[in-house]
Amino acid sequence: MTTVGFVGLGNMGGPMAANLAKAGFTVKVFDLVPALIAGVEGASGAGSARDAATGVDVFVSMLPAGRHVESLYIGADGVADVLGKETLVIDCSTIDPGTARKVAGALADRGITMLDAPVSGGTAGAQNGTLTFIVGGSQAGLDRGRPLFEAMGANIYHAGDSGSGQIAKVCNNMLLAICMAGTAEALALGVRNGLDPAKLSEIMQKSSGGNWCLNVYNPWPGVQDGVASSRGYSGGFLTDLMTKDLGLALETAVSSASSIPMGSLARNLFQTHALANGAGRLDFSSIQWLYAPDLKG
Amino acid sequence: MTTVGFVGLGNMGGPMAANLAKAGFTVKVFDLVPALIAGVEGASGAGSARDAATGVDVFVSMLPAGRHVESLYIGADGVADVLGKETLVIDCSTIDPGTARKVAGALADRGITMLDAPVSGGTAGAQNGTLTFIVGGSQAGLDRGRPLFEAMGANIYHAGDSGSGQIAKVCNNMLLAICMAGTAEALALGVRNGLDPAKLSEIMQKSSGGNWCLNVYNPWPGVQDGVASSRGYSGGFLTDLMTKDLGLALETAVSSASSIPMGSLARNLFQTHALANGAGRLDFSSIQWLYAPDLKG
Amino acid sequence: MTTVGFVGLGNMGGPMAANLAKAGFTVKVFDLVPALIAGVEGASGAGSARDAATGVDVFVSMLPAGRHVESLYIGADGVADVLGKETLVIDCSTIDPGTARKVAGALADRGITMLDAPVSGGTAGAQNGTLTFIVGGSQAGLDRGRPLFEAMGANIYHAGDSGSGQIAKVCNNMLLAICMAGTAEALALGVRNGLDPAKLSEIMQKSSGGNWCLNVYNPWPGVQDGVASSRGYSGGFLTDLMTKDLGLALETAVSSASSIPMGSLARNLFQTHALANGAGRLDFSSIQWLYAPDLKG
Amino acid sequence: MTTVGFVGLGNMGGPMAANLAKAGFTVKVFDLVPALIAGVEGASGAGSARDAATGVDVFVSMLPAGRHVESLYIGADGVADVLGKETLVIDCSTIDPGTARKVAGALADRGITMLDAPVSGGTAGAQNGTLTFIVGGSQAGLDRGRPLFEAMGANIYHAGDSGSGQIAKVCNNMLLAICMAGTAEALALGVRNGLDPAKLSEIMQKSSGGNWCLNVYNPWPGVQDGVASSRGYSGGFLTDLMTKDLGLALETAVSSASSIPMGSLARNLFQTHALANGAGRLDFSSIQWLYAPDLKG
Repeated sequence: MTTVGFVGLGNMGGPMAANLAKAGFTVKVFDLVPALIAGVEGASGAGSARDAATGVDVFVSMLPAGRHVESLYIGADGVADVLGKETLVIDCSTIDPGTARKVAGALADRGITMLDAPVSGGTAGAQNGTLTFIVGGSQAGLDRGRPLFEAMGANIYHAGDSGSGQIAKVCNNMLLAICMAGTAEALALGVRNGLDPAKLSEIMQKSSGGNWCLNVYNPWPGVQDGVASSRGYSGGFLTDLMTKDLGLALETAVSSASSIPMGSLARNLFQTHALANGAGRLDFSSIQWLYAPDLKG
Repeated sequence: MTTVGFVGLGNMGGPMAANLAKAGFTVKVFDLVPALIAGVEGASGAGSARDAATGVDVFVSMLPAGRHVESLYIGADGVADVLGKETLVIDCSTIDPGTARKVAGALADRGITMLDAPVSGGTAGAQNGTLTFIVGGSQAGLDRGRPLFEAMGANIYHAGDSGSGQIAKVCNNMLLAICMAGTAEALALGVRNGLDPAKLSEIMQKSSGGNWCLNVYNPWPGVQDGVASSRGYSGGFLTDLMTKDLGLALETAVSSASSIPMGSLARNLFQTHALANGAGRLDFSSIQWLYAPDLKG
Repeated sequence: MTTVGFVGLGNMGGPMAANLAKAGFTVKVFDLVPALIAGVEGASGAGSARDAATGVDVFVSMLPAGRHVESLYIGADGVADVLGKETLVIDCSTIDPGTARKVAGALADRGITMLDAPVSGGTAGAQNGTLTFIVGGSQAGLDRGRPLFEAMGANIYHAGDSGSGQIAKVCNNMLLAICMAGTAEALALGVRNGLDPAKLSEIMQKSSGGNWCLNVYNPWPGVQDGVASSRGYSGGFLTDLMTKDLGLALETAVSSASSIPMGSLARNLFQTHALANGAGRLDFSSIQWLYAPDLKG
Repeated sequence: MTTVGFVGLGNMGGPMAANLAKAGFTVKVFDLVPALIAGVEGASGAGSARDAATGVDVFVSMLPAGRHVESLYIGADGVADVLGKETLVIDCSTIDPGTARKVAGALADRGITMLDAPVSGGTAGAQNGTLTFIVGGSQAGLDRGRPLFEAMGANIYHAGDSGSGQIAKVCNNMLLAICMAGTAEALALGVRNGLDPAKLSEIMQKSSGGNWCLNVYNPWPGVQDGVASSRGYSGGFLTDLMTKDLGLALETAVSSASSIPMGSLARNLFQTHALANGAGRLDFSSIQWLYAPDLKG
């Protein structure tokens, strides 16, 4: 029977740990906020991160940013010292690829296998166990982790070696942001020139402008049912989170001397939108407002 | 039996007129280049545009730019004076919406129905009769024109009233350019950070970054068979033509006081690519070179 | 004694014509709005544009856009037919270079010399006779027009042959917009990171970031006295006018296959600002709000 | 008599340390490259960074990036442990403001005063003692350091408290990059439309487009004598260094949730230029090539 240590029990990590417990894993959880520890059904609480990392078959973390991950593993009193060589480490945080590679390298020096496995699918995916994992690290590591990924998610992709999961997620979300801003822009241009947004959407979906945003996450209110734009942009994938992911894209481009003009512009449009429209806590498809302020009402 | 006058017999117009003749229409064609007139199989030649426009049920034009369309219809010696009130006019040129509306309005003043019906699908689509038409104008006009559209194409969309066909095409192609530049950018960012372009493409296709370019027109050489990137970017949709369409998007945004930051940047990236890489006559997916100069070889 | 016909008597043209009269020229004025004709002190009214253009030594126009200029000179009932071959024509409108060259070419075909002479300096400059003229056309033409330019303005630059005045103005104002947006952006970045805007302005003025906007037209409220930012962005050079000039830059870039990524982005930022902040009738330095929404109050 | 420890003896640091010695300071220098230690005229060599930091009145560092500065001061075996409380610390490196504040804070916890004092002026300024220092930290600290700044430079600006020197430099250089790209863009637009670059430059200098780049560092070859563009863009401020500084601007914007669309675009244009034109080691005004590829020859 597999034992799992899990650190980081926020909106994402909490339900993920609970899903592991529900699937039959023996789960020991920890978070700096004590109330969160008690909230994970089916799991036992640990007294510290080091406690959660001691003597487990798999250790999973879900934290906000690279500095937290670095600190958890290789900071002062980091868990690296207590992790067993046979423990598989899975970091599900979305962080900069540089830190992911640095921490994985430090663990590898101690003989420990680490996977970076950022997720997409949001809090609903975490609760329903339908997350998508984009995994970086060895194939053997991924094979060992597969039962856990399957307990927490629905899709598992192997992007390449260590850090590749983070890079693939950064690339995907940058492209997503570009397509969303572009879709909102094209719709507003059409509407300002007299077109019906639903008709224009339908034409472009069937033509070469088709993309995930236009097709299943349309940003213009009233065009599609059940999407964020049709409920006042509440819930969904927050503008602030998209802006954070685009910040990772910028850092990745800077560190690799890559040119990302479209992604950079998208990042600044989402940031401008968050500032000018106070939209940080709305779904990122609310970028439509920046092009069509009348919608803001 | 329907008689058709057709003016503008270039790489697109010639095969389109021939397909009308093949479908049984009686076609009278004209072009300023005499050799092109003789080249349309099954059609008879006219001595002038006015000759081609006289006494026909439907009059079709396929010209390079708005100034040609304006001149053909309402310039000195324009065909407006010889078109019958019962003649249906179909302009298949891709031009600025402002000119489309101006010409349609001038014809409407004389009681003549005009459709703007720009196409996509390229020269192959013109030859094979598989073009897509995006039509602006009245529903009644579209219904009358349908037999001709079906003889020349495979898909027919009704975008709205006069000028809407041009606007919808401008919006679609702007979004296409944004997605293509964004896809090339995301792939280059991944590859520069060690990812395999095929694996990254596969992951993003299945995720929220999916779009027409990534899915069926991948710009990175070797990822997909049968696309322009896998044959040195020859053929396809030329960078110069995409740049022209993006110029129409800019003009449409200027005239309607619309904000199109992503589309404007895409236009300038394609223009920079054309200038810096001499890529005007290559497929527009060669924008990949701007992000990954090593591919240029 | 020199006689002058003057058409276009708005906020700019009216005071310019009055300054010509004050300087001793015999001025005959016309505008489509009768009340404006009566308002030009020292000038006599004409019954039509053709009347104003008949029998004068110099003919001056000051109109909103290229289509008005084209119509005035070479449209139906245009003044081209009544202008004498010895009449010097000066168009002071800010229009697209293409139209400027087209009209000048049409007049040249009739043996008439035309200058394009767009101005900067705003309504205050028009009233005080301190405008700057950027002139395109022959040196001989500029020499003949110099007494009029000196009566209306303080600076006269010769940019080159026909159309060059418009091009130089387009280039200058595009660069101005880029510097203004850049200055606002740098100031906001500094302030968000704890710097004092006045201190930061002073340092950059003395360093390599120095530019006209930063030095004499600072967009951050309170840094400089007597500028638009220190009076709530009232008056000055309206965002809508800057956006219009940037539209001319886009059209000039499209027609000449030029790449202008920075100018295009600036155009879209000013357009976004006009839409999102309702700032079209405020001075263009109010773009500062787009970067620092707290200033909007 | 003031004793100085100096670490980091590259193209900038070496001449700076020598100028301190020439001005009469007793200077003890260290670099990881032994040959550089011997090359500083008038200084004595130290055996390690800690040796250089021990027992001195002032300690100066000049390093490539934030990670080096962090390591030097507060890494394992960092100099923080050997610096006296009375030692004034001056870091002249150009690094991210976040690291500058972190290190200054760590030293402040030990009672040590630190200034961040990034420079501009290049290697020529370092050799000739004409650098510009933009200083962050206390006024008292700056007063104590003034004799050293005056021995190494010609201009000293106080930007604000700790980290402000880095921020002000980041802002200035971002604005410089925007103005340079904008100037190159405006000149190319004019030239492509028939204008003379020298005449256009002169007009814009006297108008509202005036800026440091246009006025004294003109990017178009042949317009000004003695600038990089007139010697094949050799020497000067390298594209790679400008790109690095723009990377700091992006990181600063990401960490402060600031919107910098123009600066981000400039960063990507310089990066694209470096990649596509192999121009990393040319002066940054060579960005002119990106707009006018014919100049590349």
